Amino acid sequence: MSNGDIFVGEVIGTAILILFGAGVCAAVTLHHSKARAAGWVVIAFGWGFGVLAGAYTAAPLSGGHLNPAVTVGIAVDTGKWDKVPLYILGQMVGAIIGALLAWLTYYAQFRANADEETAVPTLGIFSTAPEIRSPVANLGTEMIATAGLVLPILAFGKNAGIGIGPVAGAGAGVYGSGISVLLVSLLVVGIGLSLGGPTGYAINPARDLGPRLVHALLPIPNKGTSDWSYSWIPVVGPLVGGLLAGVVFHAAF
Amino acid sequence: MSNGDIFVGEVIGTAILILFGAGVCAAVTLHHSKARAAGWVVIAFGWGFGVLAGAYTAAPLSGGHLNPAVTVGIAVDTGKWDKVPLYILGQMVGAIIGALLAWLTYYAQFRANADEETAVPTLGIFSTAPEIRSPVANLGTEMIATAGLVLPILAFGKNAGIGIGPVAGAGAGVYGSGISVLLVSLLVVGIGLSLGGPTGYAINPARDLGPRLVHALLPIPNKGTSDWSYSWIPVVGPLVGGLLAGVVFHAAF
Amino acid sequence: MSNGDIFVGEVIGTAILILFGAGVCAAVTLHHSKARAAGWVVIAFGWGFGVLAGAYTAAPLSGGHLNPAVTVGIAVDTGKWDKVPLYILGQMVGAIIGALLAWLTYYAQFRANADEETAVPTLGIFSTAPEIRSPVANLGTEMIATAGLVLPILAFGKNAGIGIGPVAGAGAGVYGSGISVLLVSLLVVGIGLSLGGPTGYAINPARDLGPRLVHALLPIPNKGTSDWSYSWIPVVGPLVGGLLAGVVFHAAF
Amino acid sequence: MSNGDIFVGEVIGTAILILFGAGVCAAVTLHHSKARAAGWVVIAFGWGFGVLAGAYTAAPLSGGHLNPAVTVGIAVDTGKWDKVPLYILGQMVGAIIGALLAWLTYYAQFRANADEETAVPTLGIFSTAPEIRSPVANLGTEMIATAGLVLPILAFGKNAGIGIGPVAGAGAGVYGSGISVLLVSLLVVGIGLSLGGPTGYAINPARDLGPRLVHALLPIPNKGTSDWSYSWIPVVGPLVGGLLAGVVFHAAF
Repeated sequence: MSNGDIFVGEVIGTAILILFGAGVCAAVTLHHSKARAAGWVVIAFGWGFGVLAGAYTAAPLSGGHLNPAVTVGIAVDTGKWDKVPLYILGQMVGAIIGALLAWLTYYAQFRANADEETAVPTLGIFSTAPEIRSPVANLGTEMIATAGLVLPILAFGKNAGIGIGPVAGAGAGVYGSGISVLLVSLLVVGIGLSLGGPTGYAINPARDLGPRLVHALLPIPNKGTSDWSYSWIPVVGPLVGGLLAGVVFHAAF
Repeated sequence: MSNGDIFVGEVIGTAILILFGAGVCAAVTLHHSKARAAGWVVIAFGWGFGVLAGAYTAAPLSGGHLNPAVTVGIAVDTGKWDKVPLYILGQMVGAIIGALLAWLTYYAQFRANADEETAVPTLGIFSTAPEIRSPVANLGTEMIATAGLVLPILAFGKNAGIGIGPVAGAGAGVYGSGISVLLVSLLVVGIGLSLGGPTGYAINPARDLGPRLVHALLPIPNKGTSDWSYSWIPVVGPLVGGLLAGVVFHAAF
Repeated sequence: MSNGDIFVGEVIGTAILILFGAGVCAAVTLHHSKARAAGWVVIAFGWGFGVLAGAYTAAPLSGGHLNPAVTVGIAVDTGKWDKVPLYILGQMVGAIIGALLAWLTYYAQFRANADEETAVPTLGIFSTAPEIRSPVANLGTEMIATAGLVLPILAFGKNAGIGIGPVAGAGAGVYGSGISVLLVSLLVVGIGLSLGGPTGYAINPARDLGPRLVHALLPIPNKGTSDWSYSWIPVVGPLVGGLLAGVVFHAAF
Repeated sequence: MSNGDIFVGEVIGTAILILFGAGVCAAVTLHHSKARAAGWVVIAFGWGFGVLAGAYTAAPLSGGHLNPAVTVGIAVDTGKWDKVPLYILGQMVGAIIGALLAWLTYYAQFRANADEETAVPTLGIFSTAPEIRSPVANLGTEMIATAGLVLPILAFGKNAGIGIGPVAGAGAGVYGSGISVLLVSLLVVGIGLSLGGPTGYAINPARDLGPRLVHALLPIPNKGTSDWSYSWIPVVGPLVGGLLAGVVFHAAF
């Protein structure tokens, strides 16, 4: 894979992921949306199928990591770190573009948030916030949830019959039966359902930080705080979780 | 593929898609339905599994596009436009037949809509309507949501291990592992969940225009307006979105 | 396949299907169930994954039809009718066993239906009933919904890359990639969501008639009517629907 | 497979399963969780995708049984019992670790259970409890539900096109198309939806007993009883169900 392919793949794939993910949060949060208050199962499947859309699109170009924690976990396992900054740069740019696209998709709804009667805080559409603010507990939740994502992703690659497919295919260029991205997308649904309760499962630094920047800059009426004091937790927690998963995987398999 | 196969395939496949899609909207909208008010997740999965049913059925005959925006996106990428009118004609005929079948399936429920006490507007069963009427915003939403459908569909074809299968198989006749239509159906679930909030995600000109014609003509009691003033948006938006996806795909991959 | 394999396969597979299907109806209907009132999406996925469990289990023995309408549709297409009675016999026996197993699974809940305060009618756990009683409309709904099941099942077999797998593999013994039963199970979810509103989607004569017999015979307190006057519709409608699907398929493909 | 691989695989895989499964029960039960009261469909999919995550991770090491009832069912069919104790030991250790991880993930929420106003009993997060306490009926429910899990798992292995994959691959080391674990995870969703109503579907002795031990030992405020008088039923019922499934399978296939 060329550097250009990696960058373009991660930008497009992460943009699609965040378009779907921020989109589903807008869908259930904003007034004048047909999916308003449609519940947690909608959020979890919306994000999961965003992974499906984004990662299968990016797979032939970059392997479709779309997540610095996944990139770091693969680097720990393979020992190859030289492309990591390029991957993360593409993921950040893609996340910013995706958040802008989600905002455009729900443009009329965001504008209608000017109505004081029905205005809602909008940060939750872009980034995560904990239900109980506790740095240690929140970090722990993000670390465990991210390890619960990255360890299975790495393990899928050892199951020859499945084919590691796009995810760890960065070096190998093997796309097997292609089922691995489908599995990862259902895995992300599961993480949302099971482990998303306390912090909203960032499990991806780019997914949280990129859209938070966009939230801070966009002219959304009654948009509320961008909560920068919390912003380091969904960056550090997932990175440490990805690292730990790489270490455990390297030791056990 | 012969012209006859393409036409028959698109008619049957699109009819099945709209039978399921208009069916699920009837199921959650009309009184005396066991699924009444069953929520957004039911609508999104109903349409998605309608794609699964229709596209896998049509695949061996026509490749199973079922959507002029998909046909246009593939044409932009491949440069082959000669079959496009035939595909779109089949899709329109199929959408009309499918809407009629959905009406027959819910015939007793439509008839019971004569009861003024429980009568509901019925256009939403057949076609889309925006929550906030704003031509520019509505067009933008349909363009982005359709690009979010067509770009991944085109990209699935580059992932050799998956096999583009039915969708882009129009010329190649390659059906790979067959998983691609399953992926597209889950992708459509995701678009519904994530991007359907503002306009109800037509993302398919035939899906919206064909059933709107049927709604205008059928003798449904208290059926309400067919809203022709909005009807051009779910035609133009998806076509432009499909075109854009084809251009982006051709440039990036 | 030997006659013994076909019979045993259809008995076991249909028993599993009805265990799951009647089970999920008990789960959402009876008091003292953790899934009580869990909604239409639960019913649709419960039945769909019952197909997955039953048909994959029966596949190596009988091809896993589990439904006289499917058996008839395949017979119309292939012209081979000699095994049809054996299939249907196995399906009826299996449906009866499955309904008994579901009753045993929810035995304490059925016994608690003796409490007049919380007693509910129980026929809906075993068999279907229309929301609006209208023989012509109900027959039409069952015919269309069953054709919407059988036509795609037959078409899956033409998609070489998928492999017709268990369903039409009765003669060929080809199990392809095995994905076909997964597709059929999601198709059944879709039919439930989209076309189940008016009559509760029997779409399978054995699924309705076998459990209705069990309902009539079991000593369930406050069990309510077994509604025999309606019982012919979910037998005739699906059989005609399967026949029509076989004819359309044979003509179009 | 070496003994070390089997043990490590079952520990890691079962830990992931219980992390997801206890996690989703915490998510819908505890206050200050974004998924609170999200419903039965969330629980069923959370446990199912926990199987997907855990079993695909363990597959290359141990085949990914994660459940003594599955291990016993396979042993009955194959006649090989020598590794059974090792599997069960790994599963118990893994279940304990998984319950601890779920507790850490929801640490702040468990701590907030000290608030008497919103305190909830917490055993249901870790282990199962019947809606109606009746040893015979509860045993019967667990036996049938577990047989409904293990019989299809064994049968998947006879469907050559699918490949038994990880589950029965303990001896054969065949991972086929890898789809089998996906099927098992959807099967577990179906069992939850359809057969989980009366007892909460333990269907796995390790899944119930390990977390119950953790519940008894952890310092959770207002945690409520660990209900040891019921604890033998979700151990004995699933083991007998797995045995019966093995016997039926061996006779029928």
